[in-house]
Amino acid sequence: MQKHSFADMQCSLARGLELIGEWWSLLIIRDLFLDVRRFDELVEDLGISRNLLARRLKGLMTSGIVERRAYQKRPLRYTYHLSEAGTDLIPAVLALTAWGDRWAAPKKGSAIEFIHNTCGHRFEPRIVCSTCDQPIRADDVQGAAGPGGAAAPGTMVLARKLRPTTQSKRGRDI
Amino acid sequence: MQKHSFADMQCSLARGLELIGEWWSLLIIRDLFLDVRRFDELVEDLGISRNLLARRLKGLMTSGIVERRAYQKRPLRYTYHLSEAGTDLIPAVLALTAWGDRWAAPKKGSAIEFIHNTCGHRFEPRIVCSTCDQPIRADDVQGAAGPGGAAAPGTMVLARKLRPTTQSKRGRDI
Repeated sequence: MQKHSFADMQCSLARGLELIGEWWSLLIIRDLFLDVRRFDELVEDLGISRNLLARRLKGLMTSGIVERRAYQKRPLRYTYHLSEAGTDLIPAVLALTAWGDRWAAPKKGSAIEFIHNTCGHRFEPRIVCSTCDQPIRADDVQGAAGPGGAAAPGTMVLARKLRPTTQSKRGRDI
Repeated sequence: MQKHSFADMQCSLARGLELIGEWWSLLIIRDLFLDVRRFDELVEDLGISRNLLARRLKGLMTSGIVERRAYQKRPLRYTYHLSEAGTDLIPAVLALTAWGDRWAAPKKGSAIEFIHNTCGHRFEPRIVCSTCDQPIRADDVQGAAGPGGAAAPGTMVLARKLRPTTQSKRGRDI
C-alpha cells in the first residue's frame, strides 16, 4: 500500500499512479488484458498472496479501472475485467513492458510477446507525437506550464520553472 | 519500499518495475527529465521527505537509471541526471502521464504540457505499432509466448495459455 497519498498532488502522473495503486496493480491489469480473469488464476500466475490480491482488486474496482462479473451463482464466483479506463492504460503498460525487455529482460528472453492484430505481426510499442507522427524521444521534448500549473506539491518548483505555451508567429506552441 | 521482490519474476514488466523501485521513482525521473536536478529542489517540488528521496535516488543509481555529477566541491553537492536507461523510460512516463490527464486530471487541468521540439507543437504521446505504424489499442493486441516463457511466478498461468508465435503462410506472426 502507498503510505503517502498522491491524490492531492497537482500532477497527472502522481494522480494517475494513485488511481493505479502500486506495482502489483500493473501486473494484475496486464493479466486481465491477457484473459487471466479468475481470482485463483491470478493468484497462481503472479504468485501473489490471496489477501493482497483481494485488496488490490478492491482498490482497482474503487478506482474504476477494473469491473467484476459473476460467472457462477453457487458459490458466487467472479471474473475480473478491465473498464474503459483500464483498457486505455494497456498501451502504456505495453510501453513499460518493452522498456523492461530492453533493460531488465530475464536471461532467456521475454516471456510474452505481443501481436498487433491489425497487421498480424509481433511489435514493439513505439511512442510518437500526436501532431507530427514522429517518434518521441526524451531529448526532443520540453515541458511547459499547463492550465492547472499552480505551485502545489508535485509541481512546486516546476510551476516556477516552466513557462506557459504561447502560439508563436510560425504557428508553433512554444 | 517494495516488500516483495519482482526481480526473480519471469516477466519484463515485473522486472522493469523492480528496477524502477516504486511510484516516487517515476516522479523523480519525471523531475530530472524536466531539469529539476538538485536534492533540495526535488524535496521542494515533490513534497517528499529527505530520507525517502535519498533512499530512492540511491536505488535508482544502483539500478542504473540515475547518475550523479558533482557541481560543487565545498561542500560537495551533486546534480542528478538520467542515464541512457532512464532517458529511454521517458516516453513511457509521458504515456502514463497522458493516461492520468485523461482519467485523473486535477480539476484545473494538467500542470504540465509537453512540446515536441521536432515539430514545435504540444502533443499527446500516441502508441503505435513498430511494424505497421498504426495505433495500438488493447483490443487490437494479443499475447504470445516469448522465448523465455517457462512457467515461473509472473507468468505461471500465461506460460500455459499463450501459444508461441509462428510465421504463417501470409507472412504474419501468429
